[in-house]
Amino acid sequence: MKYTDFISDEKIKQIFEEANQTLNQIKPIELNNEELAKRIDHTLLKPDAKLVDINNLCSEAIEFRFYSVCVNPVYVSYCFDILKSTDVKVCSVIGFPLGANKTDIKIKEAENAIQDGAEELDMVINIGKLKSSEFEYVFEEIKSLAELSKKFLVKLKVIIETCLLTDQEKIIASSLCKKAGADFVKTSTGFSTGGANIFDVLLMKLAADGLEIKASGGIKSKLDAFRFIAAGATRLGTSSGVKIIKDELANSSY
Amino acid sequence: MKYTDFISDEKIKQIFEEANQTLNQIKPIELNNEELAKRIDHTLLKPDAKLVDINNLCSEAIEFRFYSVCVNPVYVSYCFDILKSTDVKVCSVIGFPLGANKTDIKIKEAENAIQDGAEELDMVINIGKLKSSEFEYVFEEIKSLAELSKKFLVKLKVIIETCLLTDQEKIIASSLCKKAGADFVKTSTGFSTGGANIFDVLLMKLAADGLEIKASGGIKSKLDAFRFIAAGATRLGTSSGVKIIKDELANSSY
Repeated sequence: MKYTDFISDEKIKQIFEEANQTLNQIKPIELNNEELAKRIDHTLLKPDAKLVDINNLCSEAIEFRFYSVCVNPVYVSYCFDILKSTDVKVCSVIGFPLGANKTDIKIKEAENAIQDGAEELDMVINIGKLKSSEFEYVFEEIKSLAELSKKFLVKLKVIIETCLLTDQEKIIASSLCKKAGADFVKTSTGFSTGGANIFDVLLMKLAADGLEIKASGGIKSKLDAFRFIAAGATRLGTSSGVKIIKDELANSSY
Repeated sequence: MKYTDFISDEKIKQIFEEANQTLNQIKPIELNNEELAKRIDHTLLKPDAKLVDINNLCSEAIEFRFYSVCVNPVYVSYCFDILKSTDVKVCSVIGFPLGANKTDIKIKEAENAIQDGAEELDMVINIGKLKSSEFEYVFEEIKSLAELSKKFLVKLKVIIETCLLTDQEKIIASSLCKKAGADFVKTSTGFSTGGANIFDVLLMKLAADGLEIKASGGIKSKLDAFRFIAAGATRLGTSSGVKIIKDELANSSY
């Protein structure tokens, strides 16, 4: 499979030009706190997160009415038990954060997470395979996860780790996500060399052709949030949700 | 299970004091290049590693006669095919780098890696559970992996991610590794806030009571290597193996 099997060089060039033209026209879209909270996956993925931190995360998610809590696999069932009688969903991560484990492990992780109560799955693509032009591999892996997700009525977000990709690779990856049946394309893990930026969200939005976009990594203020939403992000992943809602500047890198 | 079920407060204090006394007496142990190379796991775990990078890694490992190549799960069988007629082993990582996925996933990853040709497994403990004093969980997880490893005659290295632990937690974790039947205790993933240091290796060596020690993260020069070996490390994980052997200073953080 060549990338030109699913996106033409002309289309890539067009997306790049359109994103460039749009970039300076982005005006923050202001939402009220309730609307904004509904766009936020309240996130705690640090490996040293303790049970008390997970409890706090869930309490905050209930208080501020975030869309979901996003946690590592080992905490999914625990969060589900706390949140099952509320509107807050549980989101978990798959192949996280390197994406370099095997497809059957990603599938098993997804099955476990669904069984434990997750309604959204944020999986990391195989970045090395994408960069080695092994598009069939990347496509088949996303497709397997997308089919599983559809079967169990959960949403699949695909993390392409924009900071490690060229602009062309970002467009190709987003287009692959669309073709493979994902629900969202997501910018970043928060564990690599950089997070979300507005230009990447524009590229992804144009290339993913109707999929939702989740911006994550480095979103720390209400103004950040409003700018990403204006660029087309329908969901934000951040560990600074409470500070964002309260309109304080946060310090975390995620 | 309390930590005092497997290590006394007095023993912890004694280890801490002995490590402090030894720290200033460490004199680098100089090995020749052949001996040094046999202590090195030649490592490439970056998520954007391409096939060409993996090929180079294997070629270098053959040329310089490193003990192993250490790669992400998706590349184990590929490396095994290249290296099976040489002395260079394949090492892979389990639950890497966060350690926050479920035990059954770690077991399945280990089974896959062994089937694909890995002879050494570097697993990450559940750091959050350790820090939440859920020692039974951490112990049982390591024990499951240790039993699997013994059954298939592979070596289990347990990464405790020292940079996220207190000194007491480092001692407790190393002691747990011994009790659970691991072969090695390893300092770091190279993907967190810090790498190996001499004092940690001393603590681990004393607490792990006979297990081997792998120092990893930030080992960049021959002098670094000789100092860690003097402190008790029997294996070094580094992406700078070639530069270390050639005695050039490397730039990588792993």
